Amino acid sequence: MSDTPTTPEERHRERMQRKKALVDRKIARATLDRGVLVVNTGTGKGKSSSGFGMLARALGHGLRCGVVQFIKGTFSTGEEAFFRRVGGELLDYRVMGEGFTWETQDRARDVAAAQVAWAEAARMLADPCYGFVLLDELNIALARRYVALEDVLAALAARPPRQHAVVTGRGAPDALLEAADTVTEMRLVKHAFQAGIKAQKGIEL
Amino acid sequence: MSDTPTTPEERHRERMQRKKALVDRKIARATLDRGVLVVNTGTGKGKSSSGFGMLARALGHGLRCGVVQFIKGTFSTGEEAFFRRVGGELLDYRVMGEGFTWETQDRARDVAAAQVAWAEAARMLADPCYGFVLLDELNIALARRYVALEDVLAALAARPPRQHAVVTGRGAPDALLEAADTVTEMRLVKHAFQAGIKAQKGIEL
Repeated sequence: MSDTPTTPEERHRERMQRKKALVDRKIARATLDRGVLVVNTGTGKGKSSSGFGMLARALGHGLRCGVVQFIKGTFSTGEEAFFRRVGGELLDYRVMGEGFTWETQDRARDVAAAQVAWAEAARMLADPCYGFVLLDELNIALARRYVALEDVLAALAARPPRQHAVVTGRGAPDALLEAADTVTEMRLVKHAFQAGIKAQKGIEL
Repeated sequence: MSDTPTTPEERHRERMQRKKALVDRKIARATLDRGVLVVNTGTGKGKSSSGFGMLARALGHGLRCGVVQFIKGTFSTGEEAFFRRVGGELLDYRVMGEGFTWETQDRARDVAAAQVAWAEAARMLADPCYGFVLLDELNIALARRYVALEDVLAALAARPPRQHAVVTGRGAPDALLEAADTVTEMRLVKHAFQAGIKAQKGIEL
């Protein structure tokens, strides 16, 4: 019992040492060096924002990056302006579609736009020059069967081994979750929209 | 019954029109024009990345932005390099602390660093020049009582009316969730780390 910590500082130090040892062991075990497939799904906010945050990170590390936005949200031009301005040569940024489908109300046009977007995405996923590919709201296109799930799974599985891919959107299909390395469900706890606050320029509520 | 849609295209169109009407009504009701307080919490990935994605959006809209990182993660220099380079005059970016607390194992030093970080955050939250303030991993500092919750709640409540604030980190205290306009819980479904994949340069797993 002689080495039992007695002060709060000692107890804190011991607790933190145990945590550090645990994390160090996990890091030592994590030896596979390859690109990861990340899926952000669920009904909460932050799925796309998180994807764009990862894009910033990838650009910060000098990776060549590709972005395909499968749904052009009416409030989401801010990131596009910013990333186009700063991404420069490192970034290919494609926006497909013409607003949410309930704005167009024309399924044939939606399908055609999604197919064009998917062709661009497939090109990026096959090109080892891209270190990071963000497929924003692809899950929506999958859920509406605008893009074939088997094509997406095949392209993701065959992508260059060091390439990272991020897929966002609610309702990710089970087979995509299965294929993913990291899956986060963004769960809506509370939304400013529900409280009657207007969509704000400069932020995603 | 004469106006019952008969083709898939008509049914799609009618469904989308109903959705659009619903969204339009919600937008019409959302008339409060003010800054929002967003909290990203939970044990999943994407809390910080989403905050940085919102930062990109805010910069894209030309808002003056402040960032305080309360925990300097060992893998998170990518965003900093990127945003410092591109934010220019619009961005104040402060990184506090010296790595995760289990790296330092010195509670007194952690508390001192968090207090310096909080003073900087409080300055931004009181300054109407800032249109967007990101307090990254503040919840961690709150959970460890490095920063007083009542100080944080008071500063958030008293901030300029048009200023947006985003607080990230697992374990957000209930009173902060109560005060927030939008809350997302990032739920961990699957993590590449668990599958033995190394931390990847250029991406948050």
